[in-house]
Amino acid sequence: MTSLDRLITLFSKLPGIGKKSATRIAYFILKSDAAVAKGLADAMIDLKQTIRPCRVCGNYSEQDICGVCSDRRRDQSVICVVEQPQDVAVLEASHEYNGLYHVLNGVLAPLDGVGPEQLNIAKLVSRVRNGEVAEIILATNPTVEGDTTALYIHTLFKESQVRVSRLALGLPVGGDLEYADKLTLARSLRGRTNF
Amino acid sequence: MTSLDRLITLFSKLPGIGKKSATRIAYFILKSDAAVAKGLADAMIDLKQTIRPCRVCGNYSEQDICGVCSDRRRDQSVICVVEQPQDVAVLEASHEYNGLYHVLNGVLAPLDGVGPEQLNIAKLVSRVRNGEVAEIILATNPTVEGDTTALYIHTLFKESQVRVSRLALGLPVGGDLEYADKLTLARSLRGRTNF
Repeated sequence: MTSLDRLITLFSKLPGIGKKSATRIAYFILKSDAAVAKGLADAMIDLKQTIRPCRVCGNYSEQDICGVCSDRRRDQSVICVVEQPQDVAVLEASHEYNGLYHVLNGVLAPLDGVGPEQLNIAKLVSRVRNGEVAEIILATNPTVEGDTTALYIHTLFKESQVRVSRLALGLPVGGDLEYADKLTLARSLRGRTNF
Repeated sequence: MTSLDRLITLFSKLPGIGKKSATRIAYFILKSDAAVAKGLADAMIDLKQTIRPCRVCGNYSEQDICGVCSDRRRDQSVICVVEQPQDVAVLEASHEYNGLYHVLNGVLAPLDGVGPEQLNIAKLVSRVRNGEVAEIILATNPTVEGDTTALYIHTLFKESQVRVSRLALGLPVGGDLEYADKLTLARSLRGRTNF
C-alpha cells in the first residue's frame, strides 16, 4: 500500500467523505505546498491536546471550565440539555439562547449498551440540585432515541420544582407544506399557536 | 481563535469540503481516539515526503521512476497524455489501457500565464523522439482548455510519423438522451459508429 493509498483510506473514514472525495483531497495535498499538509497535521494533533470536556457541562473547551459556564452574564437559571458538543455550537450560532448547557455525550440506546450511567446525566442531576436552576430545556434530537432520552430525564425531575421543557416541533422556517413529512405535519398541527 | 476553529478553517480549504463538513470532521476527530488524529497527521506528512514526480512521465510515484514506466510488460509504443496525475489513476482503474502515460501537470491557459513551457511538454517531445512510440492518445479533458492543449500537442507531432489520437466524445454509458447536453449529443452524432 503506497502512502497515497494509506492517506486516501484514512480520509475516507472521516464522516461525509467517500472514496472519491478522499482521493481528491489526497491529490490536492500532494499538489499543494508542504506547509498545507504540515498545517493540517499540526492542527489535528494540537486539537486533541488542547481540547477537553468542560468540568461542569461536558462541552468541549480549551479551559478546565468552558466559556459559557464561566460567563456570569449568562442566565444561570436555565440549562439546555443537548446530545453532542456540536449541538452547543449550533444553538450558540442562533444567538437565541443565553442560558447554560449540559452535554449528555450520546443518547440512551439499551441495545448498544448505552444506559443512563454511560451518559453525562448524574452530573446534570447534581447541577440542578446544587444550583439556582429553574428550567431545563431538553434539546435532544426529535428521534426515537432522543425522545426516549428526554423522557427519561424528564422523569428524574418530576418531583422537583424545576420546569422541564422541550424544543418545539413543527415545520422548518422556509419549508413547504407539500414536502413536509406526515409526522412533522401532525406535530405542527398539534402544537399550533394562536395567530 | 481556538484550536477547533483553526482545524475547521484548514479543513474547509480542502476541495469539496465546506464549512459544515469541516465542522463535522473536526468534531469527529475530537470524539475519536487520539490515534485517529495521529494517524491522519502522520499519513499527510509521510505522503509529502515519500511521493515525487516520476522522472519519465511526471506521474506521482514513490520511486524515482513510477511503476508504469518501469513495467516492461506494458505496451511501450503508446503514450496516453493526461492533464493530472489523478487521471492516470482513473484510467488505470478502467483496466482498458496497457500503454504508458505522460502527465502534463495542467492545461494551456495563457490568461493565467500557463504556456507550453509551464507544462510537462518538452519531455513528451523528447520521449517520442528517442523512444519507440507509435501513437499518442490525447486524453485531456473535453473542455476548452483541454481541447486547446490537445490541439497544440497535435501540431507538435504533425510532421512526425507518430499517430495522434483523441478520446472519443459521446453519451456516457448508462446516460439518458433526455438529459444529455446539446454539445455532447452533437459530438455523439458526429462520431457515430456502425452498428
